[in-house]
Amino acid sequence: MSLTGNHTNSALLTDLYQLTMLQGYHDAGMEEVAVFEFFVRKLRPGRGFLIAAGLEQALEFLENLHFTSDELAWLASTGRFSKKFLATLETLRFNGDVHAMPEGTVFFPDEPILRVTAPIAQAQLVETRLINLLHYQTLIAAKAARIKLVATDKLLVDFGLRRAHGAEAGLLAARASYIAGFDGTATVQAGMQFGIPLFGTMAHSFVQAHGDEELAFEHFARAQPDNVVLLIDTYDTEAAAHKVVALAPKLEREGIRIKGVRIDSGDLAEHARRVRQILDAGGLQHVTIFASGDLDEYALRDMLAAGAPVDGFGIGTRMDTSNDMPYLDCAYKLAEYAGTGRRKRSEGKQTWPGRKQVYRRYDADGRMAADVVTLENDVQPGELLLRPVMRAGRRLAQATLADMRKHAAANLAQLPEPLRQLHEAYNYRVEIAGALHELAARIDRASTQTQENPS
Amino acid sequence: MSLTGNHTNSALLTDLYQLTMLQGYHDAGMEEVAVFEFFVRKLRPGRGFLIAAGLEQALEFLENLHFTSDELAWLASTGRFSKKFLATLETLRFNGDVHAMPEGTVFFPDEPILRVTAPIAQAQLVETRLINLLHYQTLIAAKAARIKLVATDKLLVDFGLRRAHGAEAGLLAARASYIAGFDGTATVQAGMQFGIPLFGTMAHSFVQAHGDEELAFEHFARAQPDNVVLLIDTYDTEAAAHKVVALAPKLEREGIRIKGVRIDSGDLAEHARRVRQILDAGGLQHVTIFASGDLDEYALRDMLAAGAPVDGFGIGTRMDTSNDMPYLDCAYKLAEYAGTGRRKRSEGKQTWPGRKQVYRRYDADGRMAADVVTLENDVQPGELLLRPVMRAGRRLAQATLADMRKHAAANLAQLPEPLRQLHEAYNYRVEIAGALHELAARIDRASTQTQENPS
Repeated sequence: MSLTGNHTNSALLTDLYQLTMLQGYHDAGMEEVAVFEFFVRKLRPGRGFLIAAGLEQALEFLENLHFTSDELAWLASTGRFSKKFLATLETLRFNGDVHAMPEGTVFFPDEPILRVTAPIAQAQLVETRLINLLHYQTLIAAKAARIKLVATDKLLVDFGLRRAHGAEAGLLAARASYIAGFDGTATVQAGMQFGIPLFGTMAHSFVQAHGDEELAFEHFARAQPDNVVLLIDTYDTEAAAHKVVALAPKLEREGIRIKGVRIDSGDLAEHARRVRQILDAGGLQHVTIFASGDLDEYALRDMLAAGAPVDGFGIGTRMDTSNDMPYLDCAYKLAEYAGTGRRKRSEGKQTWPGRKQVYRRYDADGRMAADVVTLENDVQPGELLLRPVMRAGRRLAQATLADMRKHAAANLAQLPEPLRQLHEAYNYRVEIAGALHELAARIDRASTQTQENPS
Repeated sequence: MSLTGNHTNSALLTDLYQLTMLQGYHDAGMEEVAVFEFFVRKLRPGRGFLIAAGLEQALEFLENLHFTSDELAWLASTGRFSKKFLATLETLRFNGDVHAMPEGTVFFPDEPILRVTAPIAQAQLVETRLINLLHYQTLIAAKAARIKLVATDKLLVDFGLRRAHGAEAGLLAARASYIAGFDGTATVQAGMQFGIPLFGTMAHSFVQAHGDEELAFEHFARAQPDNVVLLIDTYDTEAAAHKVVALAPKLEREGIRIKGVRIDSGDLAEHARRVRQILDAGGLQHVTIFASGDLDEYALRDMLAAGAPVDGFGIGTRMDTSNDMPYLDCAYKLAEYAGTGRRKRSEGKQTWPGRKQVYRRYDADGRMAADVVTLENDVQPGELLLRPVMRAGRRLAQATLADMRKHAAANLAQLPEPLRQLHEAYNYRVEIAGALHELAARIDRASTQTQENPS
């Protein structure tokens, strides 16, 4: 019953139906190449655009895909699968191609951000984990981008691990928000694993354990002389600000400079104003004010509009859970099998068939003007967004996190002005090209006349 | 930049400030025993009660706590910590005591569900991951319990991995919902890892890849003869139901029985009614109807109130993300250091000091009547809810998932009737005992007179 172990790349991170379908494909001799695409169906109010993220982990998962002998033995023990089929899983690897938008790319509904081309068993099996990885990071990158747009020139730090949904969510939220423009995270493992800059100083417990707040400040400053940011709201925020002023000269004599204070409760804007006055009157103009506690893009907008003198923000729970919209309506759908376009016509969930490409057009100022979704072979003017990232199961040149951050910043700068606001009534134009309409109509006609049978 | 590796028990799954505080405690020679408690501050509309979950993973984390040599080398490379302090991390293990409510216990705000008693460095370091583990599973167990209360006698299956926030969230959601009364999950790894029953059949892609829906049904039935649940909404739900009726006798002759059909789009209640009629008219009264797609407790309540003939539900995204409330206002707070009660007085976030116990009283019908939160040594009548689960860093007798399910079911049966409804205007009585009020007042008086200095 242990969580321990290398499970983040397990082939069993999948829904049971993928395996029962694979048994079905196997028995029916269906081994042709399938094309699946990951896209978001629609945006809801509160998100005018999204940021592609999670590709690196998705490709890593594909590159490492295999069943361990323990996993195969366990699958056999369930009695659900034939021996012949299980033998095929033993050698199953992902050797398909992947096209994708680079991480950090702004995208919109109906636009595939990842396209998998592989024998159907491989392409089908990986559905669950691919969605799981792309969905969450895209969700968080979009949320973080909104925060960045509101507080462009402020220090922004991810504080969300504790209330993120599990360890992986915390780590990936640190990564996704960093791509979207955050300056760093408090999550230590994200520092080691991804090289993301770390931020952090003290909690209330440090002050409480000392009992004496001033002594706690002093102890902390000596222990972390290059990183003196003092948490001042454990008992009385303004009283603590006065203690900081009193302590500063003593520490200066030891060569220690107080860098900042953090406020984590109450009316943050009002406290920030009062604390700024106290610090300035005490000659501590260089000491910055950092705020945290239940923050999101709306709270930041209001604080900054009110002129609150805050230099940086710790954003935790509401970003890492994407509190106002904890999921996207996304899907990974079959678009082609054995060379023939496929679509689903379920009510409210129809999909466009065929392997697709997305083109982006810009206006004279270099701002995004409109996108076109069309078939891969229907070449259009504009910038081509889906690029080859994996061939025959091997990753092509990889981007660094720094590249992705730069790419996201450039994309955010190219957003149409209304999309840079939090209240998006603006619908960016995504055109479904004639080629897609025609293919869909042809498939629908064919399936109502003589049904296809590719097996 | 890899996610691969055993990171779910890493000591670096923590906020940087835990390590900077540990450096501070170390330098100040503060090594006394601290008591920290995990609790939920308040409930918001939409949750009348919570279900404790995640304890097993929390204890596993504590039992395995250590820094690897790679982690220590990396911490040293950051230049943030002294050599002397890093040497103490090399041998750091968790050897404290833990008291907790058993998983599956119903609980309310202000009630600690876990209490850690350990030298302050150990108790502090683990804050982030303990909250991360207890918060998410408690969140999901509470959500799942609401679904279970609405659809008590229906088959309930977790479908949420793909849109859960990362792999760990998907696995832990399967576990938490199973504790709360779900029948199983689609997540294969949760089957292998936790022994949770698995459910799953086919996706739309299986039908699309075949093109011919009837052929897809036939292939699936032969490949999974004991598990024939057919997805009937890829093109036209009622037309597919007629195909199921036509196919049934052919399969029966091969000794294969169709068990059920699944509907995943459109007006689920209306489709279920029409499909039920078609199946019944075709002599398939034994074939069950399973529904999925954007479901939660509210959708289930409405469908069941409308008399929809649905036998089971797949509940995914909205449960695994706890869509209507993606986080709880929870905390892990210092309650005592070096034998002295401690509290925080930050605005809106005051805590009760001292090591606590929770007692529960029942009415004549065996329903929960009221809880009392008091100091550990202030014995009260009623059932004692916090029990020893770890001593000197070693877990005591462990409950099985079956035990936890039974415990949760018993607790749900004891809920006051208003809390069994979805619209809870009912506030369960949680009394803060006089002993806590007195200790808090004593601490506040002491800190305003002569400030304590335990170092």
